[in-house]
Amino acid sequence: MNETATPPAATQPPAGIRAARDYRVLAERILSPAAWAYLQDGEAETGDANAAAFATRAPMPRPLRELRGGHSRLRLLGQSLAHPILLAPVAYQRLFHADGECASALAAAAQDGQSVISSLASQPLEEIATAGRGADGEGPWFQLYWQGGREATLELLHRALAAGCSAVVFTVDAPVKRASLHLPPGIAAVNQPAMPDPAVGEGQSIVFDGWMARAPTWDDLAWLRRHTRLPLLLKGILHAEDAERAIGLGCDGVIVSSHGGRVLPGAPASLDALPAVVKRVRGRVPVLLDSGIRGGGDVFAALALGASAVMVGRPYVWGLAAAGAIGVAHVIRLLRDELEMTMALCGCPRLDTIAPHCLG
Amino acid sequence: MNETATPPAATQPPAGIRAARDYRVLAERILSPAAWAYLQDGEAETGDANAAAFATRAPMPRPLRELRGGHSRLRLLGQSLAHPILLAPVAYQRLFHADGECASALAAAAQDGQSVISSLASQPLEEIATAGRGADGEGPWFQLYWQGGREATLELLHRALAAGCSAVVFTVDAPVKRASLHLPPGIAAVNQPAMPDPAVGEGQSIVFDGWMARAPTWDDLAWLRRHTRLPLLLKGILHAEDAERAIGLGCDGVIVSSHGGRVLPGAPASLDALPAVVKRVRGRVPVLLDSGIRGGGDVFAALALGASAVMVGRPYVWGLAAAGAIGVAHVIRLLRDELEMTMALCGCPRLDTIAPHCLG
Amino acid sequence: MNETATPPAATQPPAGIRAARDYRVLAERILSPAAWAYLQDGEAETGDANAAAFATRAPMPRPLRELRGGHSRLRLLGQSLAHPILLAPVAYQRLFHADGECASALAAAAQDGQSVISSLASQPLEEIATAGRGADGEGPWFQLYWQGGREATLELLHRALAAGCSAVVFTVDAPVKRASLHLPPGIAAVNQPAMPDPAVGEGQSIVFDGWMARAPTWDDLAWLRRHTRLPLLLKGILHAEDAERAIGLGCDGVIVSSHGGRVLPGAPASLDALPAVVKRVRGRVPVLLDSGIRGGGDVFAALALGASAVMVGRPYVWGLAAAGAIGVAHVIRLLRDELEMTMALCGCPRLDTIAPHCLG
Amino acid sequence: MNETATPPAATQPPAGIRAARDYRVLAERILSPAAWAYLQDGEAETGDANAAAFATRAPMPRPLRELRGGHSRLRLLGQSLAHPILLAPVAYQRLFHADGECASALAAAAQDGQSVISSLASQPLEEIATAGRGADGEGPWFQLYWQGGREATLELLHRALAAGCSAVVFTVDAPVKRASLHLPPGIAAVNQPAMPDPAVGEGQSIVFDGWMARAPTWDDLAWLRRHTRLPLLLKGILHAEDAERAIGLGCDGVIVSSHGGRVLPGAPASLDALPAVVKRVRGRVPVLLDSGIRGGGDVFAALALGASAVMVGRPYVWGLAAAGAIGVAHVIRLLRDELEMTMALCGCPRLDTIAPHCLG
Repeated sequence: MNETATPPAATQPPAGIRAARDYRVLAERILSPAAWAYLQDGEAETGDANAAAFATRAPMPRPLRELRGGHSRLRLLGQSLAHPILLAPVAYQRLFHADGECASALAAAAQDGQSVISSLASQPLEEIATAGRGADGEGPWFQLYWQGGREATLELLHRALAAGCSAVVFTVDAPVKRASLHLPPGIAAVNQPAMPDPAVGEGQSIVFDGWMARAPTWDDLAWLRRHTRLPLLLKGILHAEDAERAIGLGCDGVIVSSHGGRVLPGAPASLDALPAVVKRVRGRVPVLLDSGIRGGGDVFAALALGASAVMVGRPYVWGLAAAGAIGVAHVIRLLRDELEMTMALCGCPRLDTIAPHCLG
Repeated sequence: MNETATPPAATQPPAGIRAARDYRVLAERILSPAAWAYLQDGEAETGDANAAAFATRAPMPRPLRELRGGHSRLRLLGQSLAHPILLAPVAYQRLFHADGECASALAAAAQDGQSVISSLASQPLEEIATAGRGADGEGPWFQLYWQGGREATLELLHRALAAGCSAVVFTVDAPVKRASLHLPPGIAAVNQPAMPDPAVGEGQSIVFDGWMARAPTWDDLAWLRRHTRLPLLLKGILHAEDAERAIGLGCDGVIVSSHGGRVLPGAPASLDALPAVVKRVRGRVPVLLDSGIRGGGDVFAALALGASAVMVGRPYVWGLAAAGAIGVAHVIRLLRDELEMTMALCGCPRLDTIAPHCLG
Repeated sequence: MNETATPPAATQPPAGIRAARDYRVLAERILSPAAWAYLQDGEAETGDANAAAFATRAPMPRPLRELRGGHSRLRLLGQSLAHPILLAPVAYQRLFHADGECASALAAAAQDGQSVISSLASQPLEEIATAGRGADGEGPWFQLYWQGGREATLELLHRALAAGCSAVVFTVDAPVKRASLHLPPGIAAVNQPAMPDPAVGEGQSIVFDGWMARAPTWDDLAWLRRHTRLPLLLKGILHAEDAERAIGLGCDGVIVSSHGGRVLPGAPASLDALPAVVKRVRGRVPVLLDSGIRGGGDVFAALALGASAVMVGRPYVWGLAAAGAIGVAHVIRLLRDELEMTMALCGCPRLDTIAPHCLG
Repeated sequence: MNETATPPAATQPPAGIRAARDYRVLAERILSPAAWAYLQDGEAETGDANAAAFATRAPMPRPLRELRGGHSRLRLLGQSLAHPILLAPVAYQRLFHADGECASALAAAAQDGQSVISSLASQPLEEIATAGRGADGEGPWFQLYWQGGREATLELLHRALAAGCSAVVFTVDAPVKRASLHLPPGIAAVNQPAMPDPAVGEGQSIVFDGWMARAPTWDDLAWLRRHTRLPLLLKGILHAEDAERAIGLGCDGVIVSSHGGRVLPGAPASLDALPAVVKRVRGRVPVLLDSGIRGGGDVFAALALGASAVMVGRPYVWGLAAAGAIGVAHVIRLLRDELEMTMALCGCPRLDTIAPHCLG
């Protein structure tokens, strides 16, 4: 066990890695037990559900097809991406590597993809936005947590806009903080004012009178929509009716997510929830799939069930912990290669040819 | 392993506990192997069935809903409770902590809930009733085992009434004693005369001619109903027809239970049996769910399937063993917080908004 | 590990036994590895299938019913039995205890039940028949293996008739011997001439030209029926059409069995095959269930699905190995008590009240 | 762990082997970790899926049937085989035993069966063809990988024809090489020119612009058909439409295969895919089943679902590693005996009597 979470910046990926999940064991070895436990919180609980959901979706090989000029590029919300694998917002990334969020955003841009800055980032969002600016000039997306009220929320949003963020991801499925962690000295959510856990009076409910009193509502979403012209995505949807309502309020996309299993124990696997959402959305806005992606075959399954793109979380943090920006870039590349290999073996030369009938 | 089951009375919960089930490992460490084995008897057998039943009921998150003024209060049989988590009757609680049943009843009252005194309590029921009297003056409920005949049963019932018990829970699913235990000196069922195991003659059936000869019948239930005006609940129902018959005989509630797996190996999980009972009862009386509740999400699932409240058994005994009354109160609080968190995340501000469609 | 399989004859059961399956660990400790491996051959393979089949059949508790005078007696093929738990034929029982088949037959008779002498018994069948004669004078049943031809088969049958056997169980599902065992000196199938494994010429099939050349056919069954007036049961049926054909040829009963998993890997669990056989037989002859019974709840399930009685194999051999006749009798008693307890808890006072609706 | 993969040539099978899978542990002990890892790559991934697929297909015993003259012979593509168990093409067999592919081909011929020479064989294909020539003069089949272009492919094909190969197996499901291995000195694919892994320019896809650029298409299959009169089988089909297209292009047989799980993680089990292919093919050409056969019962299941024959891979390589040609021959014999035993117990005297109703 290494005491420090900060190995020297790697210049090439570690040896022996064949797949994204191979970084997991490296990360566990490098991180402190507390950081590892925080990162993996909910993984065991949700991992089985997600793995089971993905396991029942077998990609069906279709050999001998013409695949000339095949690729995995897409346009998403007006942006050009080399592949549909986005980095999900993850808090406090300096817990995992000294280079923190900047390394992740840099890696995503270097792989011609996209990343999302967390409201709980441990580095100034302006620096992350700069590190993550793509060759096309597009900045990373910004994940917005409700700041307890409209004024504070607007302040944070404006700062992200000013930094050049190119889309807003409004995360609404985690109004209650479950995983607790004593942050080490020097690591904090530097972009938002400190928000202590709520306290309630005798006989009051810590949940309803405490946490939920500072949670956003649909009215707040409508308000938020009026306050930004950037593409606005709602993250944390599992029910089709909520996707419908988000579209009705003007959202530009929805992200089907169980928050990596970190919030509601026993919640449905996001992949299981995806088809009903896709069916209801009927292509009006892109649907993204978050939570549980561990390999390129999982990306393929999500796209076959109607997702336009996916977000990955823990896998890239494993890469970050093991090798900084190089590790993150490697994880993205491995996932993309696996996705393209699955596409090729299943006879799909482009993302738009991946359809439900591609799963056996 | 500690020789004694009596740590000094705790004044605050042990550190590091995040959920009710975390008390289990503490309890195993503290209790003697014999007491632990007695407590857990049937847990492995029934645990898998219950866990499987609960695992298929995924709570469906519904973010952004208005939850102002949310709470988990209810009225049950004329009593006001702060939450729907009752302490099931458990025998011989001085096996687990020197403060015994009094500690449990005290904790339930302090948490503005309710508890049930076992016929096999190891402390005088009058003392438990006093310890468990709520702020509203309501005493605990009393769990009545058939005493082999009507006279002895009536005697015990009258004593419970005199002590101020506020409802009668007639348990009928355990006419045969399976788990055997040599009670240590000084621990006994102090409220009822000693009843030795039955003996039968050569060629007779220990079951039919022994145990069942002292078991109650539907006629006895009808008789019992005539002998008390207190609310009368029937505990140990799994079949809808039995619930129907109980209502027909004037019962005020039924408790769907597999007795924590302690009586009939392989019996259905109570959660699996619940919907058919709820459907048949059609709201005429409250239906409670016992056996297998291990977390607040389980409480949510039971309520979604139609239970009015639940009873928990082993989890609070783990808390009792680890920390006495403080531990029991902490277990109740943890379950309540988890229930309310699940309610909040699923968009349910009150118990009566928890419905089947809340499970995915 | 004990070198000898012959502990002194026990006069009472070993301590700490609560259920038939508790004898398993005792038997494993006492038997030589070779004898244990021979006994358990196929157990792992078939155990899971049987356990899964039984696990899906949950007995449904029905408390408060009138059970006065309940019992588990039955009449089967004109014989009165105190319970429906017969000892299946098991070969070479002196491998497991010096008292061998005589001890098992004695125990069955002492428990007012019935046993079946194997063609491969390691003691003279006349001695076993004497040991197993019931209080009513009925001798044990005799399990007949085809002896390669009609003459040799008739010779063995006549000897069993002369010894007072009261029924013939014709086992037809094991024409090929899989489990091999070097029998220790002094242990042999003493009632039949030695039959070496078949040898075949170059290019011939050891199965078709070797083993099957000495297997019986339906014609042989018809011939056998003409040669005995005793009740004749066919053992080793899993398909309903074979049960139909057996009845057509005059059999008095069929035994649904997978031979304890010892013959055909992956064969259906006998409990899964039972309902279709019962449905086809329509009560014309009794149907017995063999293979996989490990507790009284399993007996209950088999009867609920239409079996008239069951046969148990390995469990009583575990008892035999651990404690001779006393152990076998104890196993029978434990199974009967568990059966009656399940009956009582499910509200069934007699075997003929156990029906499909008793399973949840 | 033994440093060398070359034990002296065995003259009889190792002791204690009861089934083909028993060779697995011997092979693991003998092979270097690298060779073992290469051989087993994908086994864990696909093993569970295949085992699950086979486990749900229970052979149904049908005792007492007339089986005189039973056998497991067949004619396949004009060739007479003593049994339907073919050796699948496996690369680099000198990794596993010094006698390499010649030993395997010899064993198949000695057992009056058939084998398939891999394009990646580690011995000259002419030598293997000679070793594997049957008593009837038929040479082994030849497995053809696309050589990146038509000219190189034709050259290799002509060499196989010249060597006397009697059928062509065109494998199309592995255009991408996943399992990597540093071949030890002296071991190589000696029958084809070295083909380095593809390299691509910046921004190009290693999959689409690299590997797939040298993969064959349906047009190439049509071209290939025109260039040989030998029976031509397409290996690597899982979808019924691909089987249809292969027949339309003149293929003489299709082999349903998931390449032993080595190519596409999560692909359907070949046994699960078999029925739809069989249904579509309607007997026009033979359908073979590859991937996952581990015992004779698996062969029976595959034939019951419509396969004409099966290919086995890893099991015979385990035998090769443990005991050279004798080990391979023993594995084939064990599988054949198990198949015939299953046939006999299920009342099937010939392969053409094995039908879907033989599975319970």
